[in-house]
Amino acid sequence: MKELSIPSKKRLILLERLLCDYPEKTITSPKIQDLLGYSAAVIRKDISGLGVNCGASNGYKVAELRQALESALKLSGDEHKCIIVGLTRLGQVLLDNPQLENSSFRIVAGFDSNVNRTEVLKSVFPLHPTTMLETIIKAEKITYAILTTEESEAQDMAQKLVACGIKGIVNYTPCVLTVPQGVQVQNVSLIMSLKALTALT
Amino acid sequence: MKELSIPSKKRLILLERLLCDYPEKTITSPKIQDLLGYSAAVIRKDISGLGVNCGASNGYKVAELRQALESALKLSGDEHKCIIVGLTRLGQVLLDNPQLENSSFRIVAGFDSNVNRTEVLKSVFPLHPTTMLETIIKAEKITYAILTTEESEAQDMAQKLVACGIKGIVNYTPCVLTVPQGVQVQNVSLIMSLKALTALT
Repeated sequence: MKELSIPSKKRLILLERLLCDYPEKTITSPKIQDLLGYSAAVIRKDISGLGVNCGASNGYKVAELRQALESALKLSGDEHKCIIVGLTRLGQVLLDNPQLENSSFRIVAGFDSNVNRTEVLKSVFPLHPTTMLETIIKAEKITYAILTTEESEAQDMAQKLVACGIKGIVNYTPCVLTVPQGVQVQNVSLIMSLKALTALT
Repeated sequence: MKELSIPSKKRLILLERLLCDYPEKTITSPKIQDLLGYSAAVIRKDISGLGVNCGASNGYKVAELRQALESALKLSGDEHKCIIVGLTRLGQVLLDNPQLENSSFRIVAGFDSNVNRTEVLKSVFPLHPTTMLETIIKAEKITYAILTTEESEAQDMAQKLVACGIKGIVNYTPCVLTVPQGVQVQNVSLIMSLKALTALT
């Protein structure tokens, strides 16, 4: 299988998510076009890039296509352990986020530099002071961090996370993080998302 | 000026945000490489695509570069009015988000289909039942919506928003939204952001 391009991966991530809730057994590329807004030709090319045969003349078989997508996008197999760093109001909302149920992602701990917060807040998983980051990340083999600190603390914390072995950060702070090559950042703060909308419309 | 490519725009959005807090008067492309992780050559090409002369031999002038970026990315000029749709816990956190201060974005109203929420919650801007969406969007000339409803309500609400004239949606729900051509969606739910990290690492 050829390496998929980044734009192709991004379309396929949406397709995978779409299929999670799709009620039919097959789906055609024109139907995907209607639902996702990408042209049927682009969709067919993306799917052919998966290098598997999920049928096409009468529509793709949803279960097989979904499995091929999960495999190509590395969403199947081992669980990906995540931590929340920064128990701000936003971090607290994400603590018990039901979106991750039945996914390959699991939040296993929360952290804050303010010990008051880690002692007072309630959560289904343990909350620790950030002095424990290295120990927990290494012991639990954590892959991803969800960064919800104050903006002023974000870059220092990102550096610490990367030094401890974190491979990807979902960045809910508006700070532009400087990270080494090979570490992925998804910038999803409100201000950055709105700026992206404006620039892309 | 040539139309910038989408990947170029995405890099320039990060650069613009970086320069918001940059303390020096000039910045070189190798320095931008260090901070953003894109190669200096790519950065120089992106900036040359802005079609303005902000100096380069001794570094770009930060104030001029920032102005050129704001203009090219449509971040300057008129205020962009936004609404929050769905006063869930996440929506409530975003109600008083300080990230938008000193930006060209302003949240002017919040909406929920549950009238209890709109009556009980406190906010610096008015909260309305979703039956008022069309009236307010048209009267206030709202451009963008921040979607924080329950997942089950997200697609219906997106359709209603688009029908009322909304041009872009920041989608904090995990629902894959079907919208017409010309309407932009930024998918920033936790699950979609984590999947993107996995697929892109």
